[in-house]
Amino acid sequence: MGAQERAGKGRLIGLGVGPGDPELITLKALRLLQSAPVVGYFVAKAKANLGQGGNAFGIIEQHLVESQQRMPLVYPVTTEKLEPPLSYEDVISDFYDTAAEQVAQHLEAGRDVAVICEGDPFFYGSYMYLHDRLAGRYEAEVVPGVCSMLGSAAVLGLPLVYRNQSLSVLSGVLPEDELKARLADAEAAVVMKLGRNFDKVRRVLGELGLDGRAHYVERATMSNQRILPLHEVDPMASPYFSMILVPGQKWRG
Amino acid sequence: MGAQERAGKGRLIGLGVGPGDPELITLKALRLLQSAPVVGYFVAKAKANLGQGGNAFGIIEQHLVESQQRMPLVYPVTTEKLEPPLSYEDVISDFYDTAAEQVAQHLEAGRDVAVICEGDPFFYGSYMYLHDRLAGRYEAEVVPGVCSMLGSAAVLGLPLVYRNQSLSVLSGVLPEDELKARLADAEAAVVMKLGRNFDKVRRVLGELGLDGRAHYVERATMSNQRILPLHEVDPMASPYFSMILVPGQKWRG
Repeated sequence: MGAQERAGKGRLIGLGVGPGDPELITLKALRLLQSAPVVGYFVAKAKANLGQGGNAFGIIEQHLVESQQRMPLVYPVTTEKLEPPLSYEDVISDFYDTAAEQVAQHLEAGRDVAVICEGDPFFYGSYMYLHDRLAGRYEAEVVPGVCSMLGSAAVLGLPLVYRNQSLSVLSGVLPEDELKARLADAEAAVVMKLGRNFDKVRRVLGELGLDGRAHYVERATMSNQRILPLHEVDPMASPYFSMILVPGQKWRG
Repeated sequence: MGAQERAGKGRLIGLGVGPGDPELITLKALRLLQSAPVVGYFVAKAKANLGQGGNAFGIIEQHLVESQQRMPLVYPVTTEKLEPPLSYEDVISDFYDTAAEQVAQHLEAGRDVAVICEGDPFFYGSYMYLHDRLAGRYEAEVVPGVCSMLGSAAVLGLPLVYRNQSLSVLSGVLPEDELKARLADAEAAVVMKLGRNFDKVRRVLGELGLDGRAHYVERATMSNQRILPLHEVDPMASPYFSMILVPGQKWRG
C-alpha cells in the first residue's frame, strides 16, 4: 500500500517493553508509549475478569497518563490443549482476527496504537500475529526490546554464548525426542516455555548429562524473580515465565 | 568472596547499550552509565590511533558528562587470522588479562567501572571476558541490552520466531559443512559475524534453497543502516556488523 492510501490513518507500533524490570524499557519504547493515544495489551481472560492487566501491562502501567486509552485484548484460552471439537489453532486464530479488527478501528480513525509486548515483539511475542494481519494495510513500526533470555543470563551472572559458539533457542513444548536431539547438538541452549513441560525438559537434560550446566530462572528481573537448582524445582509449580539456560563452555578469551 | 572483603571496593558493571540507535538504551543502563565515575569501552587500535572511540562508545558518548573518566581498552588485533608464531588465542588472552588489570585498578581504589557493550554483554560481547576474570574478586552487575539480531528483525519488519519454533544463532566463522548442517536443521536462523565469511554463507543458503527466505542487514538501527537483497551484497564490503536473518515460516496465529 502506498503512502497516499495511508494518509490520515493511524500507525501500528509494536513495543518491546523488556523482560520485567520496568527500568529495562528503552528510551524509545518509553517515548512512543507515552505519545500513543491508545495502548493495547494482551491479557488472559481470568486476569481480565479480575480487572487486572497482563504481565506486559504491569511493566509499563506506571508510565501511562490518564488521557491514554487502554485497550485490553483478552485471550480466550491460555493452554494449547483443548477438548475436541475445539482446536487451539482455530480458537486462537479467531481471537487474533478479532483483536486485529479492534486495533484497526483505531487506526482507521487516525489514532496510533501502541501494542506492548514483554521482551521483544518479534521474539515469540503475540504482537507478531497482529503485525502479520495489519502491517500490509497500515504503517507499522516495531521497537525491539530486551528479551527474557538475556534478562535471565544477566541475573544469573553467566555469559550465554562465547565467541563463535552456536546458540539453540528451544521451546519446552517440543516432543521429547526432538528436544533431546536439538539439545545434544547445541553448544549453548535456552529452553523457553517450561510450565507443564518442566519435568520432561529436566529429564532430557539429565539423560544428556547437561543438568550440571543448566540453570533455572523464574520471572527474571521481576521483583518476584527466583533462581533455583534444577533438582529443587517443583514441576507442578513452574510458571510459564520460567526458562532454563545452558550457557556455552567458557572460552578464556 | 564475601561482602566483607568487597567493602570499599568498586563495582564492575557490564552495560548493554543496545544495537546502535542511541534511543535503544534502557533506562537502567542510562542511569548506571551516568552515575559511573569510570566508563570503559573496547576499541580497535586503528580507531584508537585516530582518537576515536569504538562502536559502543559512539552510541553513548552524548550521554556522558565531562567529569566521567573514559577508559579505552584497545584491542591489539581485529582479525582471528594471524601469521605464525602469533596465535589469535594467545594475543587476545593477553589483551584481556591486561584490560582486566586496568579495570581492577579502579575497582581496588573504590571506583565503579561501567564497561559498555553494543547489544547485550552476555550475547557474544567482549565484556564477558572481563566478567570471567573479575566477577569472582569484585561485585559485578550486568544490565542486559537489546541485541543486534532483534534490532535487525525490527528494522526488517519481520517476526523472527513463531510460537514453538526453534531458533539457531550461528557464527559465519563456522566451517562450511557445519554451517550447512546447522542451517539445514534450523526452523529459524540468524547468522552473525559475516564480514569475510559472507560469500560462504550466501553459497550455503543457496545450496539449501534458503536464499529466498534470507534477509541481509548492515548496522541495524544505526543512521547508516542498510538492508539489501542477498545477491546485491558485495562480499568484499560486508562489514563485521552485518547479519543474515532467516525468519521462521509464518504461523497464522
